[in-house]
Parts: sequence; structure tokens; C-alpha cells
Amino acid sequence: MRQITAEDLDYLAIGAAILGTGGGGDPFIGKLMAQQAIAEEGPVTLLAADEIADDALVLPSAMMGAPTVMLEKIPEGLEAVRALRAEERRLGRKADATSPIECGGINSQIPFLLAARTGLPVLDGDGMGRAFPELQMETFHVYGVAGTPAVVADEHGAIVTIEAKDNFQLEWLARGVTIRMGGHAQLIDYPMSGADFKRTAVRGTVSMGLAIGEAVHNAHSRGIYPVEAVCAATQHTIYGRGIVLFRGKVVDVERYTRAGFAVGHATLQGLAEYQGSQLTIEFQNENLVAQRDGEMLASVPDLICLLDSEVATAVTTERLRYGQRVVAIGIPTPEIMRSEPALAVWGPAAFGYDIPFIPLEARFKDYYRKYGVASDKEKYLGE
Amino acid sequence: MRQITAEDLDYLAIGAAILGTGGGGDPFIGKLMAQQAIAEEGPVTLLAADEIADDALVLPSAMMGAPTVMLEKIPEGLEAVRALRAEERRLGRKADATSPIECGGINSQIPFLLAARTGLPVLDGDGMGRAFPELQMETFHVYGVAGTPAVVADEHGAIVTIEAKDNFQLEWLARGVTIRMGGHAQLIDYPMSGADFKRTAVRGTVSMGLAIGEAVHNAHSRGIYPVEAVCAATQHTIYGRGIVLFRGKVVDVERYTRAGFAVGHATLQGLAEYQGSQLTIEFQNENLVAQRDGEMLASVPDLICLLDSEVATAVTTERLRYGQRVVAIGIPTPEIMRSEPALAVWGPAAFGYDIPFIPLEARFKDYYRKYGVASDKEKYLGE
Repeated sequence: MRQITAEDLDYLAIGAAILGTGGGGDPFIGKLMAQQAIAEEGPVTLLAADEIADDALVLPSAMMGAPTVMLEKIPEGLEAVRALRAEERRLGRKADATSPIECGGINSQIPFLLAARTGLPVLDGDGMGRAFPELQMETFHVYGVAGTPAVVADEHGAIVTIEAKDNFQLEWLARGVTIRMGGHAQLIDYPMSGADFKRTAVRGTVSMGLAIGEAVHNAHSRGIYPVEAVCAATQHTIYGRGIVLFRGKVVDVERYTRAGFAVGHATLQGLAEYQGSQLTIEFQNENLVAQRDGEMLASVPDLICLLDSEVATAVTTERLRYGQRVVAIGIPTPEIMRSEPALAVWGPAAFGYDIPFIPLEARFKDYYRKYGVASDKEKYLGE
Repeated sequence: MRQITAEDLDYLAIGAAILGTGGGGDPFIGKLMAQQAIAEEGPVTLLAADEIADDALVLPSAMMGAPTVMLEKIPEGLEAVRALRAEERRLGRKADATSPIECGGINSQIPFLLAARTGLPVLDGDGMGRAFPELQMETFHVYGVAGTPAVVADEHGAIVTIEAKDNFQLEWLARGVTIRMGGHAQLIDYPMSGADFKRTAVRGTVSMGLAIGEAVHNAHSRGIYPVEAVCAATQHTIYGRGIVLFRGKVVDVERYTRAGFAVGHATLQGLAEYQGSQLTIEFQNENLVAQRDGEMLASVPDLICLLDSEVATAVTTERLRYGQRVVAIGIPTPEIMRSEPALAVWGPAAFGYDIPFIPLEARFKDYYRKYGVASDKEKYLGE
């Protein structure tokens, strides 16, 4: 248990932007709203998954749609509360906690906005362990939790409650409603028991976002290179240490919108020890694969993050531009995100890549033998 | 009170297609479904508005979307029941009756399908008195009934409950959901008391649809010209007698799809006493205006119906084709549909025509002096 203050949300925003792996949306507006709510209502309790009762009711919360739209169509502020109340009414039961659905990007902040306004605790875990673009791309879905009934709410007081035949139709219908609400809305989905949260969530991701943010913020004063601080911040988690994949200058960005996604690639020309080499990152909202001179270095669902080479803050897909000096790092995903059913939902093939998923620990054995891996990942280090 | 049998629905389908004024959707699939339900469950009770208690709960029912899609994506059959049950659950109360939302076209049939499956009576009245394309184009809306909470249900068991800031947003959101459900869905909206139904519904429209259908069906055996039988069938209702506007041959049809509507016009070359003259009908799903040689003869919300010149069945917008011999008739709308707030929603200006609404009775005074009008329409016959 830990009390989350407005200042903590500054750190969380920095860390969550990195966990957004290029996407997930700028946490800025969400952070301001959550900070205002905490200023008015007091700090929010963050509970470890183990601290919630098995029979508790957990109602995860998020914004749905295009975070860029939020910069022009500002939320009213109590959408998430109305969505929660509608879900409680539908289920005939009060919520005991909320949680993130997505720990990367703006959705790291929304549960704190909701929690501050309702007095609920936030659970330390989420359904993506990073950012992903669709509602069925969640460990909650992979491990059998129904996404419905779900509620989508807008700033005018509209409330749409969705029951669907499966989590794919939930995504399809909720996306349609969100579009008609103007491009973004507040969402409650995957209502579940505390026991189901413990079984299916990617644990500790809020704490990890906070830790990454604090590491970035304090690196210079501690005399640590900020990019190294980010890599070290995930070392003793279920993820494992981040690894520098490349340093370079952005020399090409092709980015276009297809079916509502920001799709494209960026090319980095190597600097320092990477001189003479090229890295290509392909993205679909989030960074999906990283190849150095044609050789695959990392792929989804492992995290591929572009960081500012000086201060190690996230460089998101929409902010990529010619001349930026960036460092590409990889962060291994937890094992709960690498099971066969999980990879069926978000492995390279799910994004159209005809390649197997090879974990970072298996690609960079020497590095991970040196720094160590989580106990359930030792299989990747074998001869 | 009257029992409605499967055979009655054959008549209702004929009459409702005419009340569809070119749109409203072919009642065929809806009729088959309702007839099967009646065959399995027994006849349905049709109640006059005055026969329902003021404090009864009325849940109007309809299909939403493109009736043409229903020919390929056949309903499962119990969508409307699921929608009704979801609405009852949301309201915490069982329904006492259903009613049509739209008496023209396929939506004349849906309430009988629902009523047969649930044992509810159908109320004899609706919210449009004809066919219109959107959910806020209802007397229920014009006279202050909230359209929400509304429920949209598909054939896979998906149920979407909508609460909106107003009836325009209801239309917008429900339309979006219907599109994502594949183009059509079942709808429950405008939940209201029996008192509100009495106050806001266009009364007797189911009976009138039945009467028109019977008139068409029996005209030949009674030795009456079928088109005249249609005109006479509405004479002693709140509408008033239909009037022949033109007889001719279809010589031109321009029809295209714009924003989901079938938009265009048809030109008729006059036959018999109309030889040498042209009639142009402009439509947007439904027929909106009829002009003879440039002179306006009739406009929305008065009903402009194209009938087969031999058998007087409806010729709908999507079936218009070169060479057809048709008779254009006008049917005056009831006064409840001609108030200032009503015309603001569906007068000529609401469809982009910069003309005042002039009732048929005022345009054709001699005809209506001869045949008479409903008592609240006598003002149109003055010197």
C-alpha cells in the first residue's frame, strides 16, 4: 500500500510515456486532470494486487480513442465517474477498486483521476504491461475475463452500456461509439473479481512506471546517464533490465493514418559506436519491430522505446522528426505476456509480421547473463 | 381492442408500404418473422390508445438501419425481445405494451413480432404517422418525450444501452452502433407512460394501415379502382381522404446514396388527362416534394405515395424504374404532425427546401370541400 500524490503523477507520466513504446498517448492532459482531482480530494491509495480481497469487485478504467483529440476536445472531468456509476448500477454492486487497463501513456493517469473523485484505491497492475491499440489486447482477455458489460461515457453526460458476444465485438462497438462521441471517451470494461485480477493482471506496472519516471528525473543529480537509469529501473521487476539497442539520429520518418492507426517507420543513422549502421523502427501506434541493417533486434510484445538521448524522456511516434538524436532501448515483457495465447493476440504475426517472437533475453544472452533475469525467464539463457 | 392474426399482417404490410411514402423499407422480412411468431404464439392484441392505463409503461419497438441489409443479414428473431428485456432491467419495471415508432414500411411489423413473443399488446398509434429516416423525427420527440434510455440489440446477443444528452445525440449514437452491428439492429426507445403515449402519439395508424391494405386487396373483387380505394380508406381518419395528384409513366430516375440516404428524383410523363404534363418527385429515402410542371403540388410532411396504376401497391424509391406506370397520390397528415414544433423537425425546411408547408387541403380546397376533412382541419377550407 502506498499513497500517490500529485507529484508522484509527474513521475508516473514520464515513466508511462516510456512504457507507451511510442504510442499510448501523451499523458499530459490526463495528468493535469488527475493532479487537480488529487489536489481537491487528497492522495490516492495504490494497492498491490495481493492486497485486494478475492471477492472484491475491480472496475478497470481508461480513456478510449485518440489522445490527440483530447488536446482540442477537453474532457469535462467526471465522465469516468459517470461510467463507473453506470457500471455499478448495471452490476448491482459497488466497486472496491479500479485499475489501469493500460499502463503505458495517458491511461496510466485515468485511474488516479477516477480514484481521487470516488475514494477508491488503484490496483498496481494492468492488462497490457505497456500500450496496445485495442481492447482485446489485454491479459484480461487472454486469460478469460469478459470485457463486458462495459460502459463508454462522454463529456455531455451520454452513457453507453455495451454487452457483446465477445471481446472483439466489444472493441468494435466501443470504438464506433467513441468515434461518434467525437474521438475520445471514458471507458470502464473488464469488470472482474479480485481473484481474477490477481490471476490475469500484469502486476506492479504502476510502481514500475513511477520508478522509471523517478529514475529519469533524478538521473542527472545522481550522476547517472538517464538512458542507463531507465534500463536499470526495470531490472528487479518481472520485466527485467532494459537494453540499449541503438543510438542515432532520425534521418527518415514515414507516417500515415490507416484505419485510425498511425502507421509507418522511422530510420536512424548510427552515432558513436553505431556509426555506419542503420536502425529501422516500424510502428502501428506503438513501435512493433526494430531492425539493424536488416537484422531483427526486437519485436512486439517486447517493449521498443525511443528515448531522447540527453534526458531519456520518451519520443513518441507522433513527435518523431528529422534530426532528433535518440536512443532505442528494448525492455523484455513479463512471461504472462509471452504465453502462446498471449502471443496469438499480440505477437508479431498479430500485426502482420511473418516472424516468430524471439525474446530479448534469447537474442542478447551475454547481456542478460551479466545482469540477470526474472526467475521465470532463466530458460532463455541456456547453452 | 382487436386480435391481429397472421392474415391481418398481410394487409398491414400492403398498407404500411403505402404509408412508407417511398421509404420505410419493404415490410416483407419483418412480416414473415411476425407471422411466424403469431403462428407459434397466437394472435396479438391491438389496443386503442385510450385502452391503456395512464401509468402503464409503453416501450415502442422498431428495427433501425437499412431494411435492404435485412435481405442478406437475416435477423435471428429474438433481438427485439432481448432489447425489451434489457430496457425493462434498466428501468427496473416490466413493460405493459409496445407500439410502433414508425407506422410506414417494415416498422409496422416489428411490434407484432415482439408482442407475439412476449404476450404484450400493441398500441394503435406511432411516432411518425408515416415513415421518416431519423429517431428524432417523431411526435414523441416533438412533444417532449425523452428517447432514452434506448436499447439497440443485434443477432449475436450484443445489447447496447444508450443514455444521451438529447434525442439528436440518441440518433447519432444509435446510428453508429447500428452501422457497427452490420447495418441493421433492433431498437427500443422513447420509453413512456400510457399518458404520454395518449398525448404524443399519432393515433390509429395501425388500424389505418390495415384498412388501406384491406382496401387494396379487396378493391378488384368489390369492383372499385384500387387507387380510389386507397384514397377512400383514409377518409374517415385523422388524416383525411387521399387525392390523386398525377398519373404517368416513369421516364427518368436519378438515385444515389448520400450520407446513408437514398437521395434523388423521379420524373413522370403524364398519361390520360395528364398527357403533356410532367411530375417530378424528389426523395430522401421518403418522397419529399411533388411538382407538376414546376408547380408545387404537395410537400413533406403530407404523404406523397407512388402506387402501381393497376393494383395500387406501393412503388418504393428503390424499385422505381423506367417505364413503370404509376399514380401519385397525396394524403394529408394529421394536425399533430403540422404544429410549429413538428414542422421544425420535418417540414420542408428541415430537408433543405426553402418553401413554406402548405397543406393538401389548402391546395385542393374544392376536392376537400366535396369529400370533407377531419374537424380540426376545417380552417383550411375557408374562403
